This record gives sequence, C-alpha cells and structure tokens, in this order.
Amino acid sequence: MDNNQIKNESITRQEDDFAQWYTDVCKKAELMDYSSVKGFIIYRPYGYAIWEQIQNYLDRRFKETGHENVYMPMVIPESLFQREKEHIEGFAPECLIANIGGNAPIDDPLIIRPTSEVLFCDHYQKIIKSYRDLPKLYNQWCSVVRWEKTTRPFLRGAEFLWQEGHTMHETEEEARTEALKMLEVYEDLGRDVLAIPFSTGRKTDKEKFSGALETYSIEALMPDGKALQSGTTHYFGNGFAKAFGIQFQGRDGKLANPYQTSWGVSTRLIGATIMVHGDDNGLVLPPEVAPIQVVVVPVAMNKPGVLTAAREVEKKFKDAGYRVKLDDSDKSPGWKFSEWEMKGVPLRVELGPRDIEKGQIVFAKRNTGEKIICPLDEMIEKANELKKVIQKEMYERAFKYLLEHVTEVRNLDELNAVLDKGGYAKMMWCGERACEDKVKELTTATARCLPFNQIPFADTCPCCGKKAEKVVLFAKAY
Amino acid sequence: MDNNQIKNESITRQEDDFAQWYTDVCKKAELMDYSSVKGFIIYRPYGYAIWEQIQNYLDRRFKETGHENVYMPMVIPESLFQREKEHIEGFAPECLIANIGGNAPIDDPLIIRPTSEVLFCDHYQKIIKSYRDLPKLYNQWCSVVRWEKTTRPFLRGAEFLWQEGHTMHETEEEARTEALKMLEVYEDLGRDVLAIPFSTGRKTDKEKFSGALETYSIEALMPDGKALQSGTTHYFGNGFAKAFGIQFQGRDGKLANPYQTSWGVSTRLIGATIMVHGDDNGLVLPPEVAPIQVVVVPVAMNKPGVLTAAREVEKKFKDAGYRVKLDDSDKSPGWKFSEWEMKGVPLRVELGPRDIEKGQIVFAKRNTGEKIICPLDEMIEKANELKKVIQKEMYERAFKYLLEHVTEVRNLDELNAVLDKGGYAKMMWCGERACEDKVKELTTATARCLPFNQIPFADTCPCCGKKAEKVVLFAKAY
Repeated sequence: MDNNQIKNESITRQEDDFAQWYTDVCKKAELMDYSSVKGFIIYRPYGYAIWEQIQNYLDRRFKETGHENVYMPMVIPESLFQREKEHIEGFAPECLIANIGGNAPIDDPLIIRPTSEVLFCDHYQKIIKSYRDLPKLYNQWCSVVRWEKTTRPFLRGAEFLWQEGHTMHETEEEARTEALKMLEVYEDLGRDVLAIPFSTGRKTDKEKFSGALETYSIEALMPDGKALQSGTTHYFGNGFAKAFGIQFQGRDGKLANPYQTSWGVSTRLIGATIMVHGDDNGLVLPPEVAPIQVVVVPVAMNKPGVLTAAREVEKKFKDAGYRVKLDDSDKSPGWKFSEWEMKGVPLRVELGPRDIEKGQIVFAKRNTGEKIICPLDEMIEKANELKKVIQKEMYERAFKYLLEHVTEVRNLDELNAVLDKGGYAKMMWCGERACEDKVKELTTATARCLPFNQIPFADTCPCCGKKAEKVVLFAKAY
Repeated sequence: MDNNQIKNESITRQEDDFAQWYTDVCKKAELMDYSSVKGFIIYRPYGYAIWEQIQNYLDRRFKETGHENVYMPMVIPESLFQREKEHIEGFAPECLIANIGGNAPIDDPLIIRPTSEVLFCDHYQKIIKSYRDLPKLYNQWCSVVRWEKTTRPFLRGAEFLWQEGHTMHETEEEARTEALKMLEVYEDLGRDVLAIPFSTGRKTDKEKFSGALETYSIEALMPDGKALQSGTTHYFGNGFAKAFGIQFQGRDGKLANPYQTSWGVSTRLIGATIMVHGDDNGLVLPPEVAPIQVVVVPVAMNKPGVLTAAREVEKKFKDAGYRVKLDDSDKSPGWKFSEWEMKGVPLRVELGPRDIEKGQIVFAKRNTGEKIICPLDEMIEKANELKKVIQKEMYERAFKYLLEHVTEVRNLDELNAVLDKGGYAKMMWCGERACEDKVKELTTATARCLPFNQIPFADTCPCCGKKAEKVVLFAKAY
C-alpha cells in the first residue's frame, strides 16, 4: 500500500498539528477552496453536498412541525437595524455595509444581513393583527455575512450558509416551548444524521444572543478538547415586538405584543462533522450525511467481466436508493482506496476476478477499517445493516469521548487542570457574572451552557465560595 | 355566491388595468409583500413554495445531466469584476457596492453579485489543469442583486432568487451543445411544470448578454401581448477563460483555453406563471407547480360526520402523494371557494352531508370551473386523471394564445399594426443592427429571438429592402 502512504503524507497528522490537519482535510477532500475575496470561501461540490443532506433532513423536519419557508431581503437599512438597541450593539462591529447603488450614494446605508430578526419583525408588524394570525412559524434558507477578522473554513467565515427560523406566538409559554422544541430537532439531527452527541442547555446571560432573553445551544466537543457551539435557539419575550410595534388583538379583545423565537444552524456543522469523526487518513463521514455512501472500486479492472460486474453492483446500489459511485478511472486500486478513504466514504465495495468467481464482494468500513466478505446476492441487505452499524458505532465512539471528557470540578485547581487538558469542566456556579468572568480570566474558557436536568454535586461556587445551585459546563471554545 | 363577488371586487379586472390586476394578485394571493427596503420584496410562504417546486424539478434535471451544486461568495471585488471589459460595462450601472466592513473602509470595494461569471472563472483558473478536469458542470442556487430603478414583483427587482449554471468544456462544440441542452431543460420545465409554451431561439447581438458570444432564450407571451424573457443560456467561447488565464493541457499536450457557458432562470418564472394563466378571480396554477394541488372544503361542516369524512378525504390525498389542504376554518363555504380560487388551487373537493350519503365527492376544476361528481372510492384515480387533464388544458390554452399572436409581417405598416395590437411580429431581417434599431424606434418593440428551424417566408428586410434570410420575432417586452 505504498500509494496509501503517499496519500497520507499529504495530510498533517492530528497529533502533530490538529489545526493544520483540519485545514488539510478541508482542502484535500475538496470540501472548499479559498476565494479571491478575503474571508469568503467557495463551497465545492463535495462540501456543498454535505450541506444539502443536512438541508434535506432539516427542511423535512421543519415542515413536519408546521414551519413554512420564506425569503427576506439580503440587506437591512441601517435605520431599521437600530430599532432594537442591544441587537445592533451586538452586531455593529461585524457589519458589511453597502452605500453605493447604481453609481449613486444610498441615503440610508444597507447592512448585508448578519441575521434577519429585524426584517422578520418588520414584516410581522404588517401581517399580524389578531390571535387568529398566530403562531407564525417561518424559516429561511440563505447566507449571512459577518465581517470576521480571523476566519477558518466552515467554523468562522465572513459569509456562511444557514437556516434561520423566526416565529411569533400568542403566549410566552408557547414561544419558550418552540425554542426548546427546535433545540430537540437539532439534537435529533446530531444523533441521527451527523452522529454527533450534542451537549444541550441554556446559555448564561453573558453568552446569550444580543437581544434575546434566553439562548439555548447545542455544543459539540472536538478531539482537541475544545467545544464548538453548533447551533442556537433563542427566546425573545416580546422585546422586539414592542420595539417594532407588533400587536395583535387577543382572545379577550385587548391588544398585546406577541412572543418571539429564532433559531439557526449553519455550515459550521460541516466543520463539526469533519473534526468529530476524522482521522489521519482524512474525512470519516456518517452514512446519513455522506454525499457518497458507497464507492465501488474494481480490482484488476482490465480483466474480462470485472467492469461489467462492477457496473451491475453500482446499479443495484443505486436502485436500492444508495448514493453510490463507481470509480472506473485509470488509477490503481491502491490509489483509489486511499482517495476515497480520504474523502470519508463510509462503505467501500471491492470486487476483482476472484470475487466474481466466488460470487462475492468485499466491504470495507471506513470508520474501523474492517473488511467483510459478502455474497453478491446478499449485498444490499448487508449494506443496509452495515449502514446502521456504522452510524451507531460513530455516534457511540463520539459519545464515549464526550463522557470521558466531562469532569466535575470542586475547586479552581481542578478547574484549571481539566481545562488545561481539554474537555468540559463541570462546575457548580453561584450565578454571578463576576465568577464567570474570573474563570475566563484564569483559563480563557467560557461557560458553554447550563445543561438541562442536572443534579447539583456540591453546594458552593469554587470561585467565590458562595452558595451555588447551578451546574455549568466550562470549556475552551472555537 | 355573494361572497365570491365581494372577493372578486378586491382584484382589479384584467381588461380594466392588467398591470394593477397583476399587482393585486401578487399581494392578495399572498405570494409576496413589499419590504422596508426599496425595490426588495418579501417572498411569502405561498410564493416561495412555487419557487420550491421549480427548484425541485430543475435540481433533479440538473443532477441527472451531470451537474453539481456549489456556492460562491455573494460579493465580488471590483478589481476582479473589471477583468472582462464588456461584462463590467453591462453591469456597472446596476451594481450595489459595499465599502465598509467592520467599521473600516474596504480598499477594493465589494460588488454584491449581480451574476457570478467572474467568481466561477476565478475558481476554475485554480482547479482546471488538464483535459481530464473537463467538463466542469457547476450550478449555484442563490439570490443576486441588480439596482433597478423601476421594480415589479417577480418581474424586475433589486434582488431575485435564481440558479446560475457555469460550465467549462474542452471544445467549442461541447460548450455550444451544453448551452442548447440547458435551453431544452428550461423548455421542458415550461411545458411539463409551468404549462407555459416558450418561444426559443437565439438573441441578436444587440440583445445578448454582456460578454457572451451567443445568447439563447426562452420567451413567454403575456396576455397583454408583451413578451417576457423567462430564462437565458449563454455560450461564451473562451473570452473569459483568456481574461482569467484559465488553461488546460489538452490531449495533444498543448495548453488551451476552455470554452464556457452559463445559464439561468429566476423567480421571474413565478411572474410568468401568474400572468399566463391568471383570470379575474385571481391565480390559476398548473397542478405540477401548485403548492396546494387539492383543497378540501367541507359543506355544512357542523353536520355530524362531515368533518370526519373531510379529514379522511384529506388523508387519502396525502397518502397518494398530493399536496392537499383541508380548510376547516370557521368561514362559509362560499368564502372558502373564492379564497382558494383566488389562490389558484387547481382542484377543489366539495363534500357535504348529501355527498356523504351518496358516497361521493364533487371536484371543481379551477381552470374551467367545471364540476365533476365522483364516487368516493374512485376519487384518487379521478384526481390523477384530472391533474393531467388540467395541466394539458392549461398548456394548450396558452399555446393556442401564442399561435394566434404570432403574425408574419412583410412591411413596416403590418409590423406597426401587429405590435400595436400586441403579440409577436415575425419578420424577415437582413441582420443589420440599424434595421433592428429602426424597429425599436418606430414601435418600442425589441427583437426577442431568432427562433430555431425557421423557413424564410419572404426575401427582403422590410426596414431596408435588402436581402434577408433571418427570421426574427419582434415584440414589446417586459
């Protein structure tokens, strides 16, 4: 397998430089490329296809839960953006602003949307009149722009693709339920599609979204011990509704302001998937999100019957609903093996003259390297089984890693030790901002979330020694 | 049907003011709304859902023909845009330009993409090295911005949703074939989905895309006699490839520039669909593109068993794969009839106590108003049949209108008379720009296309009297 080694050398080893390994994989698996526009990347076919799988799953789930897609303008007049003070303050430093249109200056400069709360509110103000108009459950698929100084493929960029849900409700309770329900949809996406176990919980006031009353998040733990915020849902109360004059006549005949949520995940999920599962040979993709689920590699392709047999195998997988590719290029099998390993295809099918003679194929599982010999006529059943097994194994491996990297800490020394090593430090917290700030100062770590349904494991906050009832996960983060 | 009349009154009659009728339908069928950003519209759920149907069809066809989706930055540095002179000259007057990012001026201002040829070329320059890398068949779903002074919903706007295909080929012939093949895909979309017969052909040099060698277009004829350019495909030769230094090593070992195409359709197709099929009661949607294909309206809903029966009917349609809605709101049946007529739902199912007793339902076809009584247990088969019939009737009606509005003209008086009345004037043309300009000056009409496979019906150009071999369609246009 000389070819294989040559291929591997082109990707930095994780233990040598994890950040460089990540960039290598992004580039070499042809997920993205840099563009001539600083900070903006090109989503290449293989990377975009991962996003399409995520979209397919989420779009179906959103529609099943009663949401409708809309499309709002990509620009927001500055004057409109300023209606909600906290919100504009949060976003102002990273706005891209257009002020020339058709060769003439624009009086009210246009901010390229970094998020669309104000546009949705502006529209809702016009179309919501009565409780009969509620709830409004809208979602939008689009890209947003945030003028970031340091960027990394998929993780932080000047432009990224995402979906943003924006909903309006009659009651506080209904809105809060919505924010939590959509968090569950994201958790399902993690478990069932991306094979990523998310830690879920509420953000501290310090870490919540500009303008929100409550922010909930899904956090993924990367192999370098850093957390990656992978999606958020927000409960706004009726603050924006008041700022934008959105009123409805309630069941009691009185005017009231509706309660609002928003929620979003982005192409950052591609970055999470790369890091959580990848290895020194490159990408490892869970079957449910892989653009190519099965790659067929003929061995001794020029021997009579091999290519015909390989084409039949390809067709059977296609007919069975698989995303399958036959690699009939003039490269060597060894080259192809490492190429498709690097691209993370979950299942490889090998098939040569001896296999044909014996009426069999050989499966190779990308995640474990195992090889399984399988009779040709049981191929699809076996693949159906392996697909589930791989998805499960990948999730469980990630889950095990997560469990091993959550450590309860009872004093600042323990906190420091855990955060130094990487992973989550689980700490009792008094709830004071000062203590949260202190942890950051000491360790550079931030509060990732207050996980749901926790049982306190100590009485006092390690920072101030005061009574503590909240359980919080701290970690260094992307 | 008093309710019906009240509803109708809210939409201007076509013969009174076609433009106002159009705007009324766009607003009242809740396809769109105006936003607070001048020239930018909001695509509301019902309008966006039409676009999703178009996307589903085209995305499948694009992938079947070997195309891959990608995503490029939404901004183009001014310096990059200027590499191809004709192209920038064409677009400069309608550019929206951003020059502030993160509170600081941007040295090389960023043009919000009006189209993405230069971004694709910039990327292709990096990834195309050999004939083995060709063809590159990429497509992108996104929105683009063109700073238009006068805008109309879906027809002309500062921002619209579209797809843009950008491909690179080894040979001239292959690229030209691609441009024509994608034109056929658009024609299929018209016939099979939108029920719109497009006139297809090549654009004159005057009317072609900035930077293209050849532009092909699909043109639709509106009921007011004006043509609507509904999509275009372009053959670029290797002009952009040269300007961007895109070179590949050919089969002969020599370096060469690849040949390029691009092609796009946009949410303008929604406007075409509204106008071609709509009537004084509102929208009329072809079943293949309708977000709701079947609406179930219970009559005497409070009578026992009616709502239960209606829910069963809804479920059966859903299980059969229909996009179906049960209207169980507390409005009167008459109100619902006209509401869903206005929204253009192709098939209405009525069902009341007497129908239930007789084991039947009543279908009403939106396009003809016909009512068809049908046994409950034959409902789905009948709907399958009616769906095809409606699609066919709508296409044929539009095709008949088109045929009746193409008139051969042999002199300028005939030309004037035809263009005054509306529709296409089919004229022999010498090929000179001066004569094309003269027609425009006389009539305000433009050359819509040089339709394919035409047999000359006269020898001379009516404008200059010189020898003419080209057949051209002139019309006033949107």
